[in-house]
Amino acid sequence: MTSGQRIILGIDPGTNILGYGVILVDKKSVHYVDMGVLDLRKEKDHFLKLSQIFERVGALIERYTPDDLAIEAPFYGKNVQSMLKLGRAQGAAIAAALHRQLPVFEYAPRKVKMAITGRGDASKEQVKLLMEKTLRMTLDAKFLDASDALAIAMCHYYQLTSPLTDTSTSKNWKSFIEAHPGRVKEGEKAEKK
Amino acid sequence: MTSGQRIILGIDPGTNILGYGVILVDKKSVHYVDMGVLDLRKEKDHFLKLSQIFERVGALIERYTPDDLAIEAPFYGKNVQSMLKLGRAQGAAIAAALHRQLPVFEYAPRKVKMAITGRGDASKEQVKLLMEKTLRMTLDAKFLDASDALAIAMCHYYQLTSPLTDTSTSKNWKSFIEAHPGRVKEGEKAEKK
Repeated sequence: MTSGQRIILGIDPGTNILGYGVILVDKKSVHYVDMGVLDLRKEKDHFLKLSQIFERVGALIERYTPDDLAIEAPFYGKNVQSMLKLGRAQGAAIAAALHRQLPVFEYAPRKVKMAITGRGDASKEQVKLLMEKTLRMTLDAKFLDASDALAIAMCHYYQLTSPLTDTSTSKNWKSFIEAHPGRVKEGEKAEKK
Repeated sequence: MTSGQRIILGIDPGTNILGYGVILVDKKSVHYVDMGVLDLRKEKDHFLKLSQIFERVGALIERYTPDDLAIEAPFYGKNVQSMLKLGRAQGAAIAAALHRQLPVFEYAPRKVKMAITGRGDASKEQVKLLMEKTLRMTLDAKFLDASDALAIAMCHYYQLTSPLTDTSTSKNWKSFIEAHPGRVKEGEKAEKK
């Protein structure tokens, strides 16, 4: 991405809460557009949850006409049963995007945290603080699921704007720091695990 | 289901091969309609695989206008990473059905084998033999993925026609044997677990 505007939809699809965040980006800045959650806890039927995910993601795409969908890809820390359910939720969300010819990108949670804070092990609060600084706004702490999705969208933005996309993480990170010094908090700079 | 015809689409959605089977059922018999596979091995991109699954399942639904979709729900024996991928594949297939207001039912592999052969630990070959008998046809051994999907559809048919659906497995099994003596091979009868 070297010029023009781009709309990115970030989705954090869980089996209980689906968070979403929408940003508008151009070469030099990021603008907040929308964020929110789809609360699936009231719906007990697993399949109706998937249906709601598919329809809501589809509705978000029709509303904001994003250029890309960014999604979180967790790879560990859950049992096989919960991963199957999580995978189904993600599959429904991804299908809604692909059905509309929207490209999908996935990022590991650690990658999202590192892109935003410079640390893969950053806390949710640290991620939130740096996002607030970048987006020049306050994020309500009550909506962590939505701000997680916004973080995924921002991670994709950083990936797109990095001059070293698709090279090694280390190089990528170095150029990221150089290109975006204002986004890295003092004391956390370049501390790569 | 007490009367009328019903079309059941069975899907066995893997990340490499998606098998499908279609049956037409009425109160007393089952008729084979179609079976086949979608080979996803040539497509390296994970998201394009999901897109193919969603579109193909959608096309099958439009072609055969089934009343129900039956899908396999494995709950063990895979690592979390492969379960997430499998879940995504299933989520895409399920979303294609739900988007068209098609009800979805899931059955554990053991349940499918038991419904067809009377044994949860039956081999693929035993499942195939009994399906051939019930459907009055020969199933090509080369298309095991497709006949697995057909087995899932038949499992759903047996579930629908069981007078004790939604009671305990044990009771269900007993009534199943009583109601369908011809479908249980000698020597395997009622040997549950």
